[in-house]
Amino acid sequence: MWKELLYMSGYHIAVVGATGAVGQQMLKTLEDENFPISQLTLLSSERSAGKKVIFKGEEHVVKAAAPQSFEGVQIALFSAGGSVSKELASEAVNRGAIVVDNTSAFRMDKNVPLVVPEVNEHALKEHNGIIANPNCSTIQMVVALEPVRKAFGLNKIIVSTYQAVSGAGAAAIEELKSQARAILDEKEFTPEILPVGSDKKHYQIAFNAIPQIDKFEENGFTFEEMKMINETKKIMEYDELHVAATCVRLPVVTGHSESVYIEIDNGDATVEDIRALLKEAPGVVLQDNPEEQLYPMPADAVGSNDVYVGRIRKDLDRPNGFHLWIVSDNLLKGAAWNSVQIAQSLVKLQLV
Amino acid sequence: MWKELLYMSGYHIAVVGATGAVGQQMLKTLEDENFPISQLTLLSSERSAGKKVIFKGEEHVVKAAAPQSFEGVQIALFSAGGSVSKELASEAVNRGAIVVDNTSAFRMDKNVPLVVPEVNEHALKEHNGIIANPNCSTIQMVVALEPVRKAFGLNKIIVSTYQAVSGAGAAAIEELKSQARAILDEKEFTPEILPVGSDKKHYQIAFNAIPQIDKFEENGFTFEEMKMINETKKIMEYDELHVAATCVRLPVVTGHSESVYIEIDNGDATVEDIRALLKEAPGVVLQDNPEEQLYPMPADAVGSNDVYVGRIRKDLDRPNGFHLWIVSDNLLKGAAWNSVQIAQSLVKLQLV
Repeated sequence: MWKELLYMSGYHIAVVGATGAVGQQMLKTLEDENFPISQLTLLSSERSAGKKVIFKGEEHVVKAAAPQSFEGVQIALFSAGGSVSKELASEAVNRGAIVVDNTSAFRMDKNVPLVVPEVNEHALKEHNGIIANPNCSTIQMVVALEPVRKAFGLNKIIVSTYQAVSGAGAAAIEELKSQARAILDEKEFTPEILPVGSDKKHYQIAFNAIPQIDKFEENGFTFEEMKMINETKKIMEYDELHVAATCVRLPVVTGHSESVYIEIDNGDATVEDIRALLKEAPGVVLQDNPEEQLYPMPADAVGSNDVYVGRIRKDLDRPNGFHLWIVSDNLLKGAAWNSVQIAQSLVKLQLV
Repeated sequence: MWKELLYMSGYHIAVVGATGAVGQQMLKTLEDENFPISQLTLLSSERSAGKKVIFKGEEHVVKAAAPQSFEGVQIALFSAGGSVSKELASEAVNRGAIVVDNTSAFRMDKNVPLVVPEVNEHALKEHNGIIANPNCSTIQMVVALEPVRKAFGLNKIIVSTYQAVSGAGAAAIEELKSQARAILDEKEFTPEILPVGSDKKHYQIAFNAIPQIDKFEENGFTFEEMKMINETKKIMEYDELHVAATCVRLPVVTGHSESVYIEIDNGDATVEDIRALLKEAPGVVLQDNPEEQLYPMPADAVGSNDVYVGRIRKDLDRPNGFHLWIVSDNLLKGAAWNSVQIAQSLVKLQLV
């Protein structure tokens, strides 16, 4: 279907944060998808300006993002941190661009649709210039659970995450690798980035598990946990849904995993019903065969746009309770791929 | 209190599996605790027989375990695998020993007490020669939750685990380390042990997460998950308790973590109530101060006998729902220390 749109001459696309971990995946995804681009504007912070980036074999020089950078831009993919989005997204919109923002800056803004195309593509129609891309850990969960909600109703989600360091950026990946090597070599090391670069204390991540992602809120939950809770309700358009999250950072480079318990409305549903549903669900790959030890793992999901689901079990006490294990590449479906999907949907729905 | 018992001349103790990861920790714990030992018999499989082990500065030669090895033994600590326990535990009992068995061989046997001294020390009085030491991931959870159950009632537990490879033995530790090094050096490697040495397929553990610990049961849960479910009910003497578990192996050497959701009977209980309770609970160390980024982590728990609890939050939807993060050294409280504690309790209760 997408390929059919290639007759168009293409769009003027800007990528803000083009040198970052997600920005790089956005460019790779735009290239892989053969997104119709007539002009490409690559932007970054002052610090990264001047760097060179290859796109479809051509060298592009990355420029420092400024209000006037967005003249003529039709779709601007932002992934350079919340402060950049807050400063420049409206400047881009004022100049006629539609902004797809991958930061948390506007996600809970009532005037901003928060979109996972498999779940609520229709919300794009209500956009006012800015569209928010949800948090990585939220996206993969709602892709897997929305088909279940539609078929059987859904009233409760309890999720514990197993999140990769690449969600904290390229420096966090480097920290994990250098720490792992130091520990194997029995050398000293000083944690400097994880769990949160801007927080007070930093802890060992290699061969460890840190139950903090993003800063703490006053209610004792972390901001990451509150993102999962609030964004899930907004994307599913279902305020009454009970959602609870515990978010944990692991010594994994890329690929978020989630242990999810749900309660659905229909207690007659079987594991086979859920499997049949997810086998056909958009963006989902079912990997669930205990006899063959088939289940999703982050190392297998890296590089794929899909959301993998396995370990589906009916709760032993509650007939309407189910357990699932959900894995996806946090840089792709969790970020770059979902943003590019939103851009594709904008084109498909003739909103750009 | 324990020190007061040192006036006794001591007991003839056997350690079966003395050269293994847990056996070594048992010996260290017996030494650290200054357990009153008049004679020490160190036993192993044929394969490890002849190895030398130092205990309190003295060299002991490990012998191949046989029925007659248990002549005169008063307490035999078994940790050499289920098949060794099944073969030799009754031989030891027939010769007058009390067996403290760290395998899963007898845990669900109705005639065998399954004991965590902080929770159900009294069950030791019903022993018929064999006492079972619970599964590592079960022990730390019940130590943290029993005080909550006693004070506020408990009707539901949903746990997702983050388990270290040392639970799968010394070879699994070696596999994690050599794999991590191979990946950092961009070299090839072949998984041979994890998730389960005797299962069909083996997967990468370094920089990955494997949602399988022990083999799969027919109901889609793994044996490890069923251990947590069934053992928790038995130790808490509470068959009606709803328990569900998802067990995941991580690239962590030692230290199991657990993300636990509970529903208690008393919806008026506050986070401060739970904290106050756990601050005074036997075997528990409260590490819960979000403002100071204080929470338990496996890297910090290694080498300690305690169970660490933090990230205590009231569920945002259910007033009787709480979330906790529980961490402990799986080789100590999860195995060696709990076994030695049982031996101490046997002495204290004059059962030996």
